Amino acid sequence: EEVAKLLELKAQIGDVGTNQKFILKTPKGTRDYNPKQMAIREGVFKTIVDSFKRHGAETLDTPVFELKETLTGKYGEDSKLIYDLKDQGGELLSLRYDLTVPFARYLAMNKINRIKRYHIAKVYRRDNPAMTRGRYREFYQCDFDIAGQYDPMIPDAECVKIVHEILTNLGLGDFVIKVNHREILDGMFEVCGVPADKFRTICSSVDKLDKTFWEDVREEMIEEKGLDPATADNIGQYVKMNGGLELVEQLLQDPLLPTSKAAKQGLEGMRTLLKYCQIFGVLDKVSFDLSLARGLDYYTGVIYEAVLKGSEMLPTKTGEQVGVGSVAGGGRYDGLVGMFDPKGKQVPCVGVSIGIERVFSIMEAKAQAKAEKIRTTETDVLVASGQRDMLEERLKLCTELWDAGIKAEMIYKKNPKMLNQFQLAETTGIPLIAVIGEAELKNGTVTLRNMETRAEEQIPRADLISVIKERCRQISSS
Amino acid sequence: EEVAKLLELKAQIGDVGTNQKFILKTPKGTRDYNPKQMAIREGVFKTIVDSFKRHGAETLDTPVFELKETLTGKYGEDSKLIYDLKDQGGELLSLRYDLTVPFARYLAMNKINRIKRYHIAKVYRRDNPAMTRGRYREFYQCDFDIAGQYDPMIPDAECVKIVHEILTNLGLGDFVIKVNHREILDGMFEVCGVPADKFRTICSSVDKLDKTFWEDVREEMIEEKGLDPATADNIGQYVKMNGGLELVEQLLQDPLLPTSKAAKQGLEGMRTLLKYCQIFGVLDKVSFDLSLARGLDYYTGVIYEAVLKGSEMLPTKTGEQVGVGSVAGGGRYDGLVGMFDPKGKQVPCVGVSIGIERVFSIMEAKAQAKAEKIRTTETDVLVASGQRDMLEERLKLCTELWDAGIKAEMIYKKNPKMLNQFQLAETTGIPLIAVIGEAELKNGTVTLRNMETRAEEQIPRADLISVIKERCRQISSS
Repeated sequence: EEVAKLLELKAQIGDVGTNQKFILKTPKGTRDYNPKQMAIREGVFKTIVDSFKRHGAETLDTPVFELKETLTGKYGEDSKLIYDLKDQGGELLSLRYDLTVPFARYLAMNKINRIKRYHIAKVYRRDNPAMTRGRYREFYQCDFDIAGQYDPMIPDAECVKIVHEILTNLGLGDFVIKVNHREILDGMFEVCGVPADKFRTICSSVDKLDKTFWEDVREEMIEEKGLDPATADNIGQYVKMNGGLELVEQLLQDPLLPTSKAAKQGLEGMRTLLKYCQIFGVLDKVSFDLSLARGLDYYTGVIYEAVLKGSEMLPTKTGEQVGVGSVAGGGRYDGLVGMFDPKGKQVPCVGVSIGIERVFSIMEAKAQAKAEKIRTTETDVLVASGQRDMLEERLKLCTELWDAGIKAEMIYKKNPKMLNQFQLAETTGIPLIAVIGEAELKNGTVTLRNMETRAEEQIPRADLISVIKERCRQISSS
Repeated sequence: EEVAKLLELKAQIGDVGTNQKFILKTPKGTRDYNPKQMAIREGVFKTIVDSFKRHGAETLDTPVFELKETLTGKYGEDSKLIYDLKDQGGELLSLRYDLTVPFARYLAMNKINRIKRYHIAKVYRRDNPAMTRGRYREFYQCDFDIAGQYDPMIPDAECVKIVHEILTNLGLGDFVIKVNHREILDGMFEVCGVPADKFRTICSSVDKLDKTFWEDVREEMIEEKGLDPATADNIGQYVKMNGGLELVEQLLQDPLLPTSKAAKQGLEGMRTLLKYCQIFGVLDKVSFDLSLARGLDYYTGVIYEAVLKGSEMLPTKTGEQVGVGSVAGGGRYDGLVGMFDPKGKQVPCVGVSIGIERVFSIMEAKAQAKAEKIRTTETDVLVASGQRDMLEERLKLCTELWDAGIKAEMIYKKNPKMLNQFQLAETTGIPLIAVIGEAELKNGTVTLRNMETRAEEQIPRADLISVIKERCRQISSS
C-alpha cells in the first residue's frame, strides 16, 4: 500500500512536470481537420460515394489494424513503410497500408467470390511526408473494387468510367487517365532481354519515371540493378510511347513486342479495354502509356493512374515531385485473394483508389482563392432575446423547435446582449433569428428576423414551426 | 547483387510457406462490418448526426494516433489499456483511447476557447473483449462536446437533451439517463471520512457498482484500499440513493452532506441541471444517482451515463455484466484543456459520447428478429438483355443512364442468361429492369419492367431517362 501511494504521488508529480516541456502537436505527417476543412471533405466524399453508388457498389469496413502477417509479402519494396504496433502481449499487429489487402483478406475469410464494394477509410504509411503537396502518413483512400469471374475488361473499363466521372464531377480541371498492362510490361522486359528474375526490380525502376528523367532511371537499371546497357536502351524505346487505340494496333504490328505471348495477350486486352472506354464516352481522357508501372507486387493485369494536367509532375534533378500529380490509381490483382485462401482459391479482382488528400488540397486552395464563406453548421434558427431573465423562455422555445426537428441554437448565457446574438448569427451564417421578450410573451408571438433581408415578422406562436419550415425552404431554394 | 537475388528468392519461398500455417482472422477484439451491417450502421449514424446538427454542432477530425505523452496521465487506472505503436525510429505514438483527450489537445493547440463540435470516429482499448455484448477493442464513439465559458448547467443540460433525443429516435426501448456530480462525490467522500489522497481510488471502486454488488465493492474498499469499515458503510448509505429533484432537496437538508462545501455546490448545481432538464421535457428519463462515478480522471463536474432498461445489468457473482448496459456517457471536464496549454489556460468543457457498438448490436439483433430485407445497394435499374451479342448495347445504355445520374448496373458477362439477370435484380432488390434486344433496337425503345408489379412497358429511348426518374419517385414514395 505504501508503494502504491508513492507511485500515485509520483504519477501526480510527473503530470505537473510534463506540462512544461510538452510539445503540442499532432504526430509527424498527420494533421487535424478543422470544421471548414471537414465541410470541404464531406462535399468531396459525397461526390465520390454518389458515383460509387451510381455503379451499384455496397460498402464494408475492416479494422484499422491487421495481423502483421496479413500484410507480409504484399507490398514489395514498400513494406518498410508499414507501421507496426508495439508488442504488448498478444498478437503482432500492423496498421493497414492500403484497403486492398484487407479487402482480399475479407473475401478469403468469408469465402466471397463476387462483390462490388467501396470502402472509404484511412491508411497509414511511414513515408516522407510532403504535406503541402498532400502527402501524409495518415490519409484517406476511397476504393472501389469489383471481385468476380467475369468476361475480360468489362469491370476493368467500368473502373476507368468511375474515375472519369469522379474527376469530372469534382471539377478539378483537365486530367488524363493513364492505363497499361502488367503483361505488356512483362512482355516488354522479356523481348528487351531482361532476365526473368529481374522483372520486378526493373519494373520498380520504370515506376519512377513519373518522378524522374529517363536518364536517371537508365543509370539505376545499369549501375544498381546490373542491366545490360543495350537492354536498358531497348526498354527506353518503349517506355516513351503513349497514345490510344492506334498505338495498340501499331504495337501489335511491332516486329519485336508481340513475339512475347504475354505482350500479345496484354495488347489484345488493351484493345478491348479501350473499345469499352470508347463506348463509355471516356476515351478522350485515356492514355495507353508504356511508362506506367506502379510499384505494388500484387497487380496482374490492367493498371491505372489518373493525373491532373495543370499540376502534372515536372521532374527535377532532386527527384522531387512538383504539383499533386497522381490523384487515383489501381489495377487488376487476380492473385491476391488466393494468397489468403487456405486452398489458394483465386478470386479475380480489379479496382481503383481515389487519393483524396491530394484532391482535398486542391479543393481547399480553390475555396481559399475564391474566399467563399463555408458554413460549418446547419443551424436554421438562433433563439434570442434582448431582455433580462428570458433564459427559461429561450430554453422553452429551443425545446419546441428541436422537438419539431428544426435546427436551433441559443447562447448559453443567462442574459446575453442582443448585439452578441446578432453577431453569432452573422458570423456562423444562421439565416433566421427568433426573438422573444415581454411583448412577444404577452401577445403569444415570436419575432422572426431574416438575417439576409433584415425583414422582421410577428408570428403567432402556434404557427411558428410551420412558418419557420416555410422560410427555410424559401431560403435554401433562393 | 547475388545476396539481393537470394533474399528475393527467400522472400518468395517465404510467401508460399506462409499460405499453409496462416490464420485467417481479424485481430482479437475487432471485426469486419459486412454490407448489411454497414447499412444498419449508417442508419444509426444518420440519426445521431441529425441530432448533433439539430443542436448546431460542427465537426472536426483528428489523427488515429497521438504522441504518447498526449495521452499520459489522463485516464487513471485505464492507462494500461492504451495501444502503443512500435518504436520504428521517430516519435513515440499511441492509438487514441477516446475522442475527448484529442479534442482537448486540439483546442489548446489552436487556442480555441469556444466551440460546439461532434466527432464520430474509432477509438482503441486493449480491454477484454466481450463481442456478443458489443464490447470491442476497436469501436466507434460518437461525441458531442461544448467548450466555452458559459452560465452554469445550460450546456450540461443540453447534453442530456441530446442523449434523450438520440435514444428516443433510435427506438431502443425505455432508458434512463443517470446523472451525478464529481463535487457531490468528493463531498460525500469527505463527510464519510475518506482521506483526501484516497478520493480517486475510492471513486474507482464506486464506479464498479454498475457491474458488482455493494458487498464486493465494500470489501475492495476495506481490504484492498485500506478504508475504515465505518467509512465504507457511510458511503454505502449514500450510494444506494437515487431520485429526482426531491432527492436533491432532501440531501440539501441532510445533516452531514452539505457540511462539505463541494457537496453543497454540487447539489445546487444538480438542482439547476434538473430544472433545465424539466424545461427541455426530458426529466422523466433522468435519475440523479449517487452511485454513478465514472472512472476517468478528467471529470470535474456533472457526469452522465445512459442505460437501456430492458438490458440493464444484472450483477452476477462472477462480476460479468449481462445485457449491453451503458449506451452513452460523459460529463464536465474543465481542467483537461489546461493540461495541454503551455500557460495552463483553462477552457471549460462538457460532453457526451454515444457508445455506438452497443446500440448497433441491438439494432442488428432487431433487424434479424424482424427478418427484414436490408438493401445494401441503391441501384435503380438493371440493364439486361436476353439475346446474344448485346454487350455493347448494354454498355451504351448503362452509359446513358449513368451520365443522367441514374444508378444502374449490368452483369459483366458477354451473354448472361435472362434468368440470372432477373435473379440478380430479385436478390439485391433492384426495382426496375431495362431490357434491350433486337426488337427494341429496331423500334428505338426499351422494355422497362417493374420487379414488384411485374408490369412491363415499352418506352421510347428518348423518353427513357425521364420515365425512369418518374418510376423511381413513385416506387420510393410507395
